[in-house]
Amino acid sequence: MAEEKSKKLADEVRGLSLTDGNCFGIPRKCDAKGNREIVARMVTRRDDPEYKMSHKYRGSALIFSHESFDKLEPRSEANVDYENLKKVLDQLDFEVKPYKDLSYEEVRKKIAKAAGKDHTDHDCILVAILTQGESDMVWAKDKCYKVDDIWSAFTPDKCPTLAGKPKIFFVQATQAKLLRDPGFRLQHKGETQTDGDSASNYKIPLYADFLVAFSSIPEYCSWSDSERGSWFIKSLCEELSKSAKSLDLLMLLTFVAQRVAVDFETYDEGHKQITCTMSTLTRILRFADQKRRTSK
Amino acid sequence: MAEEKSKKLADEVRGLSLTDGNCFGIPRKCDAKGNREIVARMVTRRDDPEYKMSHKYRGSALIFSHESFDKLEPRSEANVDYENLKKVLDQLDFEVKPYKDLSYEEVRKKIAKAAGKDHTDHDCILVAILTQGESDMVWAKDKCYKVDDIWSAFTPDKCPTLAGKPKIFFVQATQAKLLRDPGFRLQHKGETQTDGDSASNYKIPLYADFLVAFSSIPEYCSWSDSERGSWFIKSLCEELSKSAKSLDLLMLLTFVAQRVAVDFETYDEGHKQITCTMSTLTRILRFADQKRRTSK
Repeated sequence: MAEEKSKKLADEVRGLSLTDGNCFGIPRKCDAKGNREIVARMVTRRDDPEYKMSHKYRGSALIFSHESFDKLEPRSEANVDYENLKKVLDQLDFEVKPYKDLSYEEVRKKIAKAAGKDHTDHDCILVAILTQGESDMVWAKDKCYKVDDIWSAFTPDKCPTLAGKPKIFFVQATQAKLLRDPGFRLQHKGETQTDGDSASNYKIPLYADFLVAFSSIPEYCSWSDSERGSWFIKSLCEELSKSAKSLDLLMLLTFVAQRVAVDFETYDEGHKQITCTMSTLTRILRFADQKRRTSK
Repeated sequence: MAEEKSKKLADEVRGLSLTDGNCFGIPRKCDAKGNREIVARMVTRRDDPEYKMSHKYRGSALIFSHESFDKLEPRSEANVDYENLKKVLDQLDFEVKPYKDLSYEEVRKKIAKAAGKDHTDHDCILVAILTQGESDMVWAKDKCYKVDDIWSAFTPDKCPTLAGKPKIFFVQATQAKLLRDPGFRLQHKGETQTDGDSASNYKIPLYADFLVAFSSIPEYCSWSDSERGSWFIKSLCEELSKSAKSLDLLMLLTFVAQRVAVDFETYDEGHKQITCTMSTLTRILRFADQKRRTSK
C-alpha cells in the first residue's frame, strides 16, 4: 500500500516539470548549436514596475472545459463555469477560444498550436482548465496529464513572442477522491463557544493565510556570493527595507522577483534565477506602522 | 536509474504534506472525540480587506541560519544573509529569534515551541530558513527535512492563536546540485542580435512571468454545485468582473481566496476550500483599459 502510494506520488510528483525541455512535444527554438540564448523583443524596460498591457490585442484565452469523460462521472457544473468565465474574459478583451471535452491528444495539439503562434501584438496569454483532477494531474476526456505540461509549454525558449509577458493559468480541478478540509471556526472575542452560530462568525479552511516565498522554483539553483549574500535574501531585505510599510507583501515580493530576475547573473556562465511565491492569503498584508510598538 | 529517481521523487514529493496531522510531532488541539472544529478568536471581521496588523506586538521572527553542516560544504553567505535579514525584521518590530546551525532535532523543538506559544497579542508569525536545499527539502546541520513540515506546524488546529493571521515563510535554499537556468535575453525592438550587450538589454530567467491560480491546494478537494458552478470559478469571475481593471491580479486573487474561504461551505459536513496561487511574476499585472481595442 505504502509502495503503491509512493509509486503514485512519483508518477504524479508535484512541482514544475522543469527538466523536460520538450513538454507536450513542443520544440525549443534553439540555434543549430543548441544555444538557448535566443533573443526576444523587449516589451517592458528593465525597471518598469508594471507589465505593458496596451498592445494591439489583449491576447488569446484558451478555455479547456470538460463535462464528460470516458472513465469518470460527468461534471454537472461544467457549463455554468464555462459561461461565467467566457463572459468575463470577453469583457477583458481576450480572444476566447472554447475547447469542450477534448482528448489528451487534442489538448496537446491546441497547446502546441498556441505556443507556436506569433504573440507579438498581444499583452499576455491565458489558459483555463476546468476539469476533474488528481493531485497535480488533470483529466482530458480520455486520460490525465500534469498541469505543469501546459504551462511549461510557454517558456520563452519555446514561445519567444511571449517572453517577458504574463502567462496566466486558472486551474479548476474538482477532486472528489481527495482530502477534505474540515475547516476551523472563528468567533468574536468574548463570545462563548455555544454562540458559534451567530451570523458574523465564520469558518476558515485549515490552510488559509499562508505565504511561502521560495528563493527559486523547485529543482532549480539559488545563487549567492559570500560578500553580498544570497541574491534572494539581499533583494528581499532591500525591498522590505524600502517598501514594507507602503506596499502589500505580494506586490513587494513581485518586485523581489524583478530584482533577482533582472539584476543578477552568474559571472561565469550567465545563469539566472527566479523566485517563487505560493500564497493562500485571504486579505491584503501590509506591515502598517500604526503606532510604534515596543518589540516584545 | 529511473526507479531510483522515482523513489527519490516519492521521498521528496513536492507539495504540502497535508495528510500529516502531526507535523514535527506537534499535536492537534482536538477535543476528546477528536472533533477538529475548535473555535479561535476572530481577529478580522468576515469582510475586512486587510489583515489586522495593529496588535500589541508584531510577532516572532525565527531565523534558522545554517553556515556549517556535518555532510555538506559550508555556506559562506550565511552571515551576510542573517545580518541583512535580522536588521530589516528588527525595523519591522519583529521579535527576532536567531538560531544558528541547529540540528534537525533542535529545529523541530524550536518549531514545536513556537507553535505551542500564545500568539494572541501578535499580528503574525515569520519563519526564515537560510540553508542548503534539495528540491523541497532543506538541510539542518545533520539531516534534511521537508519545508512543508515547518509551515504545516502552524495550521489553526495546532496553533489556534494564529488562526486567521498571516503565517509568513522565507526559504533561501541554495541548491548546488540542481538545474541551472540559462536565461533568455531581451533586446529593444529594431536592434539586431549583435547589439545584445547594450546596457538597457537584459536577460530573464526562463520561468519568470508565470502565474498559476489553483482552485485548491494539492491533494485537497475543490467543490462545486451544478447551479452556481465551482466555488473557485464563480468567485474568480465575480472578482474579475468587479475589479480586473482596478486591482492588480495578485491582490484580486487574494480576494478570490477570501470569497472561497469565507463564503462557501458544503451543506452536509461543512467542508471548506482554500485556493492557492503560485507566482513568478516580476511586475504588477493589471488589465488596464487604455483604449478600447477590438478583440482579434
